[in-house]
Order: sequence, then structure tokens, then C-alpha cells
Amino acid sequence: MAPEETPMTSDDRMIFRSAEIISVGTELLVGQIVDTNAHFLSEQLSQIGLSTYRHVVVGDNTERLEQAIRHALTDNDLVITTGGLGPTEDDITALVAARVAGVSLVSNRDITDRLESRGRYVSPGYPLIPEGSRYFHNDNGTAPGSLTFFTLNRSQKAILMLPGPPDEMEPMFLRYVRPVLEMHSAAKFVHRYVRLTGIGESRSEDMIRDLIDSQDEVTIAPYANPGEVVFRVSQRLESGDDDKTDEAVEAIVERVGEFVFEIGQRTLNEVVLDMLVSRGETCAFAESCTGGMLASSLASIPGASKALLGGFITYNDEMKQSLLGVPRDILEGEGAVSEECVRAMADHCRLRTGADYALAVSGFAGPSGGTEDTPVGTVYIALSKCSGLTVKRFFFRGDRERVMRQSVVAALNLLRRGMIDG
Amino acid sequence: MAPEETPMTSDDRMIFRSAEIISVGTELLVGQIVDTNAHFLSEQLSQIGLSTYRHVVVGDNTERLEQAIRHALTDNDLVITTGGLGPTEDDITALVAARVAGVSLVSNRDITDRLESRGRYVSPGYPLIPEGSRYFHNDNGTAPGSLTFFTLNRSQKAILMLPGPPDEMEPMFLRYVRPVLEMHSAAKFVHRYVRLTGIGESRSEDMIRDLIDSQDEVTIAPYANPGEVVFRVSQRLESGDDDKTDEAVEAIVERVGEFVFEIGQRTLNEVVLDMLVSRGETCAFAESCTGGMLASSLASIPGASKALLGGFITYNDEMKQSLLGVPRDILEGEGAVSEECVRAMADHCRLRTGADYALAVSGFAGPSGGTEDTPVGTVYIALSKCSGLTVKRFFFRGDRERVMRQSVVAALNLLRRGMIDG
Repeated sequence: MAPEETPMTSDDRMIFRSAEIISVGTELLVGQIVDTNAHFLSEQLSQIGLSTYRHVVVGDNTERLEQAIRHALTDNDLVITTGGLGPTEDDITALVAARVAGVSLVSNRDITDRLESRGRYVSPGYPLIPEGSRYFHNDNGTAPGSLTFFTLNRSQKAILMLPGPPDEMEPMFLRYVRPVLEMHSAAKFVHRYVRLTGIGESRSEDMIRDLIDSQDEVTIAPYANPGEVVFRVSQRLESGDDDKTDEAVEAIVERVGEFVFEIGQRTLNEVVLDMLVSRGETCAFAESCTGGMLASSLASIPGASKALLGGFITYNDEMKQSLLGVPRDILEGEGAVSEECVRAMADHCRLRTGADYALAVSGFAGPSGGTEDTPVGTVYIALSKCSGLTVKRFFFRGDRERVMRQSVVAALNLLRRGMIDG
Repeated sequence: MAPEETPMTSDDRMIFRSAEIISVGTELLVGQIVDTNAHFLSEQLSQIGLSTYRHVVVGDNTERLEQAIRHALTDNDLVITTGGLGPTEDDITALVAARVAGVSLVSNRDITDRLESRGRYVSPGYPLIPEGSRYFHNDNGTAPGSLTFFTLNRSQKAILMLPGPPDEMEPMFLRYVRPVLEMHSAAKFVHRYVRLTGIGESRSEDMIRDLIDSQDEVTIAPYANPGEVVFRVSQRLESGDDDKTDEAVEAIVERVGEFVFEIGQRTLNEVVLDMLVSRGETCAFAESCTGGMLASSLASIPGASKALLGGFITYNDEMKQSLLGVPRDILEGEGAVSEECVRAMADHCRLRTGADYALAVSGFAGPSGGTEDTPVGTVYIALSKCSGLTVKRFFFRGDRERVMRQSVVAALNLLRRGMIDG
């Protein structure tokens, strides 16, 4: 039976107003792994128009999990759990959820058949799902998802259980769960995003202060990622409401347009790759302190091979000399972290690869290294294109990885501007 | 005044038993950024010996934040907040915390002086901290941390407020906050970690099933990262208890030793770099589908330049030919994703760079590409060293980025084994 045909329950017309996400797992509480599920689900729920007022993480403890689910159900009609659905003893989520819902756990022939047909070993009595629940197949693991409707203190409630591993949960959610949740949603949120780079959070906020202060139906919320500032423009749309987010986005762009690289959800590397592909142009990289991070920021996007040719990682002076032909004079005189060095790196990289654009990066990422004139955090970036060469010097704050990440963003932005300037 | 000398309060002998972490910010709830603070703090608290039973994320809403803090204080004596300490209107944490603690917010001359001496712009009336609280300077931003003791329903309670940006919060916590919390802790947890690669989570769990099942004082908890399985061995140590985690670690290693690359906290890239440095050897990389991610996994570790020379990113056939001298016969015959191709890439990379070890990676990371014989997820990895060449073929599941990450782990492990085998 296809998942789209799993049995309907009589609660299919219930409208969810708000959901609380509970991530289950002691490994989350002791800081061994980062909970990316709550992040993924929040974004999804927000797109669907379901409000989320709280996330909770609890360990593999039946009492605390039950307390968390009951507490969540006092303020919300939907509780979403991730994790704790495996076959081992500390996988307690289904047990606790069934207890709260007042139903038994049962095995399901459709689920076990499907697992067996995929050659998955299924231990006896596993997996179990709450009786009468709608279930969701797990194409990448064994634990199925389930959505259980029940009545608690005369209110209609629901518990959605999802597996913990993100590579099982995310595809399950996108393929099977989201269409079901959309049927249970009344309102929709509209979110728009204006993404800036080359400017700090506080300065960019100051430039649109009055817009932020005068917000009413439309809210503008700023936040920052390394090298990037994002303004999230949001409106909750009930039926009949006018979408006023476009106006707000226009007003923001009027103020800070020169720093805007994207109105939407694309990150800077995606914007740069899309620009390259649409122009039919190619790029290559000569990386010192970023050590391959710049190239891999493009390589990790599907379809990168249409524009990314490759490049060189030259982590010491000898490599800069032998792979990229940086003259010994420069390395011994100005040094590897200098305008002269990145110029030579970029030009040679473009020549050797035949790319339309070559970026070169050299700097002191720290924690050690650097000189009095060129302290840790100093990064030179050069862009070579057929019409000429641009070099910029940056000072980045933060630890080694943060300096590397900011260098990647600055380099991609230099390339973006280089394409716009022609 | 140095932070170590900030005034003591009369509550300095309070012993914290458990802490709840509350992350504040609507941007977390709508899924725009991942909450890494709770993860960082959990691990820190666990090391200090403070139990954490719950994490909560709430938006920038005074009522919900107050409700969350009050709820947390019913079960815990310490509440830790991150975020919401900035100068803007939606930064409500200090306001709400002071209300719960029943104290006023005051400005502090020591804090503002220090900010001004660092050339930070300080707006009038900012920052404010709860009266009588211990405060912590922010070396990387403006919002200070604070620890406020108070009595609620005749119980002694405390609220620790920390800034939201991880690059401000983490250094503040490590430098100033942790030593203070350690004074307030009674017990300590011992955690040991056995890290495996080259084996799946369920298979490795099966191999130590009886150890997991017979756990009593010492608990063994498995979890997985891409390409890696970790067994966390934990014991809560009260004074007088014997540390039995070493025995448990030995018992695990006896079973799964061939897959163990680390007993401790180092990740595989750190283990490989340490091995290279201690042997005085060097490495270089020739990357196709990983596009620089392999090299940057080493480059992101402080001190990488001692062993990492550099390498080549050859993202298409022309680059493999021109930069790495892969014969056209191979590219047109066996193709770029083949044993022959990575052999040529690895050998040439070692020759060109003079490294002791060269790793070459070529595969189909997807989502498109691949052939019937060589489907998406197929990755060839070669290790070239002076005593010879090893090639392995892998099939990885998951999306593009996951295939790339698993390739990086497999390549590093091939290098690690290549060093051990001599």
C-alpha cells in the first residue's frame, strides 16, 4: 500500500494552531550532538503556517518525557517529537506517547512488509506504532513516523513522532508528513529575506532603524551569520489579508541596496554559482589560508560542475612557488600574506585553468602566525579576470574557522561584484 | 578591575544541582539559525557535573519567556539563558529575568568603561544588568553576561544570562563563567569516548550489545555522525566513588578495536594531523567530488601547516588532465570515476607536491550523474605513498553533501591506516 493511501482517521479535519517540538535524546542534553531537527522542523512549520512558541530537548527518561509532552499539550494542540524511536531500551518515545494518548502500541504489517522487502532486518515486535495512528514510511532507516489523534481533557490533540537521524527524518517529513500537515493548517506565514554582505549587523540595522521601529502587521527581524546579515520580513496571513511584505522589502532595499546580494533564500555561494552558470562562465580558486573551503563552498551545490573548474591549494611557500609560480622574491620580500602574492596566485590560477575568473586567498587564520604589520585575521583576496585584477585586504575577528569562513564569504562577494562590474 | 575581582555576593556557596538552558530568539523558532549554544553549554555543564534535563527555545516574547523561566525554576535551581541581551527592543531577556528575580536593572560603570576603552560605541542606558549580580565581560561584543542569585518561594535560585552570538558567548563562558560555575558544583561526571569509523552504528552496537545491556553505574550510549560511530561511556562520580569508565572502555576496545581511531575527544581529522606531525610527514590532496572539503578538513585545525602542503581541485576532465596529468585514455575509457583515474591523480599529486602521502578522491556525489555500473554515491579513493598505492571503492548513501562528508572521512581513514601499516 502506498503511503498516500494509509488509512485516514476521523480526526483529519482537525486544524492545528500551534506546535511544540520536543527533541528526545540524552546525547543532545550532554552536548554530544547538535539538534538540527528542531531547526529544520521550525522552518518547515513556519512555511506551512503553524506557529511554534517553544522547542524542548529532553533525555531518554520516561517521566521527564511524559512531563514534557503533557506540558506541551497544555499550550499547543500538536506535539512533534524527534528521536527515541529505535529498537533499543532507551528508545522510549513511542511508549510514552501512546501512554499520553491512551492507546496501545501495535505492530503494522504494511510497515514490516515494506522493511523486509527492502532487505532490512526487523527484530520481533519492532517497530510498534500507536494504534489507529496514521503512519509514515522511513525510506532511509527502520523507525516509521506516526501521527496520532486523541482527546485530552476534552480537547482534541495530536502527537507526531519522527525518527531522530536527520537523514531519515528530513526526507520522511518532506515526502510524507508535510502534505498531511498542510491539510491541517489554517493560516500561512509569509517570510521574505533580504540578505546582505560586506556590512555589519549593527550598522545595517541603524540604516533601517525607523522601518524596524514602525513595524506593525509586517515585522522585520535582523540576524547575522558569519559574513552575512539577514533581514527577515514576516507577516501572518489570515484569509483576506493583503500581503504587505513586498513593500517592506522594497523599503529595505532602497536603504541598503548596495550590500544586498539576494532577496530570497539563496546563500551567497548559490547566488554566485547561479550567476556564473547563467553567464556561461567558469571560475577557479587558488587557496592558501582557506585550504579548500572556498572551492568546496561551490562544490557542495548540486550542478557546481557547470561553472567550477577546480584550482590549487597552496598551503606553504614552496607550493605557492611550484604549483602557482609565485616568484621567490615576493615570498621572501612581501611574504605570502601580501597583495603581491595573491596577485600572482590569482593570475597564474586563471592562466593555468583557463577559467574566466580566478580568486586567490592568503591570510593568517590564526591562532598563531601573523606579524606586527600583518596581524592574525589579515586576509588578502584577489580576483583575476580578463579585464583586469582587483585586490582587497580584510581584517577578520574570531577564531581560525571563523576567519576562514569570513574569507570565503568575502571572496565570493568579490567575485559577485566582479561579475556585475563586467 | 579584572573580571576575577568582580564583587562576590552572599550566595557564593550555593550548590547548583541542575540547570535548564533557555535559548531566546524568534530567529531560532522559525528555523533561520541553528541553536548551537545549547549544545555547547550542555557539554560544558556535563563536564562540570551539572545535570541538564531540558533545553527550551522561546521567541522574543516577554510573557512566554517569563513563563519558560518560571517553569524551569520549578524543577531546577539554575536557569541559563542565551540571547536577547542586545540594545534593541526585541532584546527582552534582562528585563524578564530581573522581573522574575525581583530586582532592578542597573548600569555598571566597570562594564561601560571597559567597553569604551575598547572603542565600542555604548548607547545611553545600555547595557543594563540585574542589581547585585555578578557580571562577566564580553571580549567580543557589547552585551555582558550576568549571574543573579535570588529567592523564589523560599528556595535559592539563580539565573545566568549569556549573549546569543556563539563567538561572544563561548569565549565568555570558557574564560569567565565556567570557573564560577565549577565553584557551585558538587559532583562530577566522567565521560569517555570511543570513536570508530569504517563500521555502521547498528553493527557496532551489536558487537557490544551485552556490555550495553549489563550497564549499571557506567552507562554506554552510542551515537553516530556522518562516517563515525561514537560510544559515550559515562559515570556520575560522587566523592568516594571509583572511576570504572576505564574498564568499560577497555572492554569496548577488545570487541571493536580494529575500527577504533580515537579514545577521547579528537575527531578523525585531528587524529590524522597529529599522526602526521608526530611522524614529521606531509600530505597533499587531489580532489574531484569533494571539491576542497578534504583539504579544508585538515586546514581548519590550528597548526595544519606543519603537515598539509596543499593540492589540486580538479572538478572536470580537462583539469584532471592539465593539472594532474591523468591520461586522456583513462578519462575517455574508464572515466573520471574509476580506479585508474584516482591512481593517476594520487601518484601525480604526490610527485608534484613532494608530499609523503597523497590522497585522491573521485566520485558521483549526486543528485545527478552516475551510470548504471557506477551509480550516484560511488566514490573511488586512492592513497599514494612511497611504498605503494592503495585504492578503495565506496558506496555512500544520502544527499550530495553527505556523500562528500563520508568521502572525506573515508579518505582520512585510508590515510590513517596507510600510516599505521607503514
